[in-house]
Amino acid sequence: MSDLRSEAEVWDAKDELAAKRAEFVLDDTVYLDGNSLGALPANVPGRVADVIARQWGELRIRSWGESGWWTAPERIGDRVAPLVGAAPGQIVVGDSTSVNVFKALVGAVRLARGEGGDRPDGGDRHSDGGRDEIIVDATTFPTDGYIAQSAARLTGCRLIPLAPAEVPAALGPRTAAVLLNHADYRTGRLHDLPGLTAAAHAAGALAVWDLCHTAGALPVGLDEHGVDLAVGCTYKYLNGGPGSPAYLYVREEHQERFDSPLPGWNAHAEPFGMRPDFEPAQGAVRGRVGTPDILSMLALEAALDVWDGVSVDAVRAKSLALTDFFLRCVETYVPPGLVESLTPAAHAERGSQVALRCADAGDVMKRLIDQGVVGDFRAPDVLRFGFTPLYVSFADAERAARVLARTLAV
Amino acid sequence: MSDLRSEAEVWDAKDELAAKRAEFVLDDTVYLDGNSLGALPANVPGRVADVIARQWGELRIRSWGESGWWTAPERIGDRVAPLVGAAPGQIVVGDSTSVNVFKALVGAVRLARGEGGDRPDGGDRHSDGGRDEIIVDATTFPTDGYIAQSAARLTGCRLIPLAPAEVPAALGPRTAAVLLNHADYRTGRLHDLPGLTAAAHAAGALAVWDLCHTAGALPVGLDEHGVDLAVGCTYKYLNGGPGSPAYLYVREEHQERFDSPLPGWNAHAEPFGMRPDFEPAQGAVRGRVGTPDILSMLALEAALDVWDGVSVDAVRAKSLALTDFFLRCVETYVPPGLVESLTPAAHAERGSQVALRCADAGDVMKRLIDQGVVGDFRAPDVLRFGFTPLYVSFADAERAARVLARTLAV
Repeated sequence: MSDLRSEAEVWDAKDELAAKRAEFVLDDTVYLDGNSLGALPANVPGRVADVIARQWGELRIRSWGESGWWTAPERIGDRVAPLVGAAPGQIVVGDSTSVNVFKALVGAVRLARGEGGDRPDGGDRHSDGGRDEIIVDATTFPTDGYIAQSAARLTGCRLIPLAPAEVPAALGPRTAAVLLNHADYRTGRLHDLPGLTAAAHAAGALAVWDLCHTAGALPVGLDEHGVDLAVGCTYKYLNGGPGSPAYLYVREEHQERFDSPLPGWNAHAEPFGMRPDFEPAQGAVRGRVGTPDILSMLALEAALDVWDGVSVDAVRAKSLALTDFFLRCVETYVPPGLVESLTPAAHAERGSQVALRCADAGDVMKRLIDQGVVGDFRAPDVLRFGFTPLYVSFADAERAARVLARTLAV
Repeated sequence: MSDLRSEAEVWDAKDELAAKRAEFVLDDTVYLDGNSLGALPANVPGRVADVIARQWGELRIRSWGESGWWTAPERIGDRVAPLVGAAPGQIVVGDSTSVNVFKALVGAVRLARGEGGDRPDGGDRHSDGGRDEIIVDATTFPTDGYIAQSAARLTGCRLIPLAPAEVPAALGPRTAAVLLNHADYRTGRLHDLPGLTAAAHAAGALAVWDLCHTAGALPVGLDEHGVDLAVGCTYKYLNGGPGSPAYLYVREEHQERFDSPLPGWNAHAEPFGMRPDFEPAQGAVRGRVGTPDILSMLALEAALDVWDGVSVDAVRAKSLALTDFFLRCVETYVPPGLVESLTPAAHAERGSQVALRCADAGDVMKRLIDQGVVGDFRAPDVLRFGFTPLYVSFADAERAARVLARTLAV
């Protein structure tokens, strides 16, 4: 047995999260695509079967009250909250990430302009001299940029796409909001959430963060770092299932003036009052829109059970150890020059994935998958390997690097 | 046995849809709340169990291609299409009804103003002399009005709430779009979709219809009547499950210029190109936003199997026979003056529910439910009874009226 295989055994033997793997449905595949779709938590099938057969099939309409369907968005939001460093009452689950980016960004512009609240005249001030710029992370997952363009157009703002490092210099009295991704989906680079949030605030702007690639992988600290609004998906490191509902964080101090561009009946102070005029609910519930998607939402709720007793700090420690170890295995096994890591070596700049640039990456990933090592390919030349600390072992990391080396040697 | 009970037996014996009831999970409850949450189709639990255990649990990320996850929104849209009189390629499933109302209404205003398409300058024309009014059904389910208010605010329009009958007189050269509900959620009144659509067109405006209370209950004829855009939920007469995804219809001739205010990455011509600039997909797919919610969406797909071989005309015929019969039973059993029907007697003005006004309606409904007759209550004084022709029998209608009479007599 190689030194690295022995070393993996040692690491796995002392891994305090190792037992968590048994709470997922896994086979002998090395599954390194949990940064795209998390594996199935073992308690989800039974829970969803009960939701369908008993709650829907037998109780039917009564389940909106008796089975807690109606309050699911905020109840499950409170389950996500500790994973991203938020006190209760600031997160609601529902809709897709894209839809939540829209709510958050239009809401942020209105807050920055002091427009918040329930304006009886219903008009936006498209003020020329006011805050009319939105800065968006130019390296972010594209949907954020597309939605930011729409938010800018509808609020009379100019959209300024910049790399995160260029943001501080561009902030100024015209900046309304900044939309940034906590980790770059291609390279796995972790951006400086505390520093960039503080910089936005110093300019009088609001900071909106996309946590898709960090929630469940590392401490986010939304409350601690003063983040204004945030969104994230739940199907990556939170294992909520394909296309599971996303979430919206609205910092408590902003809730009173948060003015959603999607004020559906679920955001109303009295939804069943069926009133013609909109009066927003108090609290994060204001971020709800329409009828919550119960099957997907309660699958997510079951999936979140695996976090019971888990410390996010422990997850982060294991994530860094795994990606360090994988990079070391790659360096040891793969002949020089065949791959180049795009993932920062510094821990402070690294998320929970490793991105390797190589020739014929699409074809290489196909061959890896055929050999039971599942990552994914991002055009034009990137192999992505996501490390989910709850179910990926050091032995997995070693095997992935070994199979990669063998594949590249052919 | 009373005459009406015998009559119900005769009707049920010759009901060509009677066999459909066996395709649902039902007990001896008289379930007249399918206009709020449709009953569970019997094939849904098995299908969802497979989606979770095999597609997610075993195939994991591969299911986006191999299990057809990626194309589900348009594939399932094409299953909804024949139920609302639409040719294929015009409907996508996803998001909530409220979110789809927003897409449809902002999209309609842009189409009416001739702004459609991919405008490189990204600016809306808030033209003073142009079309700057949105008319909304003042009697509609409230979320439509709330979202219409937001759409108006963001597009620089004035919102004009009117009863549907008042709409034709209010249409004019400033009208951009009209948002109407096909059936009133309180009274069950069916509005004149062909006539009001034609009136909107005569004024140069676009007609947007909310089909929540008619899709699956009666022929809608979207293509035939020239409807421009439409939305609807799938959890009422389409039995898709609690909060199942809604849908958006974009008439083929508008698709090229349909300019969604929620242009997420799923609406991009090449989603996995991960390009910084948004280039809209061709076709109804342009109405997609973010990652589709697969569990709920595939539950809906299974639920739609019950429509195989069903004629919507037969559904409509049974629906009218059921509501006629129920009203006759109520008139026969309930002493005069205790209830008043809000539902139009004329077939052309009736959806698939009966609304009865009565004193202490909330309490009356509680007592009905305790006796196994499930309808619902809408403040302040309305009892609603929805008749889903696929699983409600004439015997159910007779029993409901009988129990109502007994309850009111106490």
